[in-house]
Amino acid sequence: MQAPQFAAPVERLIEFFQRLPGVGRKTAQRFAFHVMSMEETDVSAFAEALLGAKKGVARCKECQNLTDGPVCRVCGDEGRDHSVICVVSEPADVAAIERAREYRGVYHVLHGVLSPLNHIGPEDLTIKELVMRVGKGDVKEVIMATDPDTTGETTAVYIAGLLKPFGVKVTRLAYGVPVGGHLEFADEVTLLRALEGRREL
Amino acid sequence: MQAPQFAAPVERLIEFFQRLPGVGRKTAQRFAFHVMSMEETDVSAFAEALLGAKKGVARCKECQNLTDGPVCRVCGDEGRDHSVICVVSEPADVAAIERAREYRGVYHVLHGVLSPLNHIGPEDLTIKELVMRVGKGDVKEVIMATDPDTTGETTAVYIAGLLKPFGVKVTRLAYGVPVGGHLEFADEVTLLRALEGRREL
Repeated sequence: MQAPQFAAPVERLIEFFQRLPGVGRKTAQRFAFHVMSMEETDVSAFAEALLGAKKGVARCKECQNLTDGPVCRVCGDEGRDHSVICVVSEPADVAAIERAREYRGVYHVLHGVLSPLNHIGPEDLTIKELVMRVGKGDVKEVIMATDPDTTGETTAVYIAGLLKPFGVKVTRLAYGVPVGGHLEFADEVTLLRALEGRREL
Repeated sequence: MQAPQFAAPVERLIEFFQRLPGVGRKTAQRFAFHVMSMEETDVSAFAEALLGAKKGVARCKECQNLTDGPVCRVCGDEGRDHSVICVVSEPADVAAIERAREYRGVYHVLHGVLSPLNHIGPEDLTIKELVMRVGKGDVKEVIMATDPDTTGETTAVYIAGLLKPFGVKVTRLAYGVPVGGHLEFADEVTLLRALEGRREL
């Protein structure tokens, strides 16, 4: 163990920054020194933003996305197609799909993926809430948009199985080479999936 | 411009995280979501740490390093040699040298380097305070330990010139190949300096 290198209040702040994902001691130090070089009013606003994000944000009672009202912006929008649900693992995925400005349905945020190794089972995700929504009977299609990796795949297949009895159409995002990418850098599995999914021009 | 993608309190927090050095939109999002997954008491403590670091920390009246008392731990230590001053640009540099557990003198933190391109002149650094310390007459040696880059070099040479009239010994950290590094990855300038500074075994 090393002795603390900075004044106690600085060390305390460094410690908190270090808890952020992917932040090591050196980056946390840089963050802390940056905070100390900020105007005091800005630091106060930063502290309030921290508390505000924690206290002022809850899960949308429809789609479980994060929202500052009872229902999120997408679910509250009457212009969206509420009969199509796109299932994603994280709120950031909703943001990514919204950026494409193409999808007009609604979402369901699982807040994770199934991962037995990390002791994350179906009861830790919002799968029950999804089944309840589909169970109401107004849903025509559920698009599984979890990440195209092992856990995302497993989660998609598991949920598809659960939804089968409801007779709802369950689809999966297309696999293929990313637009703007270089074919030579694509891995074999992606290329295989891209070939399998080829379409007539 | 894009429409905000998350609830307003979340966007506000993302914005603040984005102001930290080297943090882009995606990293800031990850940080914000991490905060929202933290316990509320931890988030409160984080917010307090932010304010505490800003309000509870001032500059040591001797060496200008950051401290929560009137004088920093090093300057307040009677066992240290107060006749040797190691001049560094940032508080983090003090921490780096302290980690080596070898240096027994005191420090002087400039809080930056001379950089005409960024409009940082001698009056923006704690150079005046350094000259005052040396002027008191108890200092035997000043070790210039600014970074071995252009601005660090310029600052060291500039300060050495200012201290000349006081008849104090001004030294510079040795240049050379880093211990544990690979010679093949050392740049030419470093190798040149390492050769120039070679010593008999």
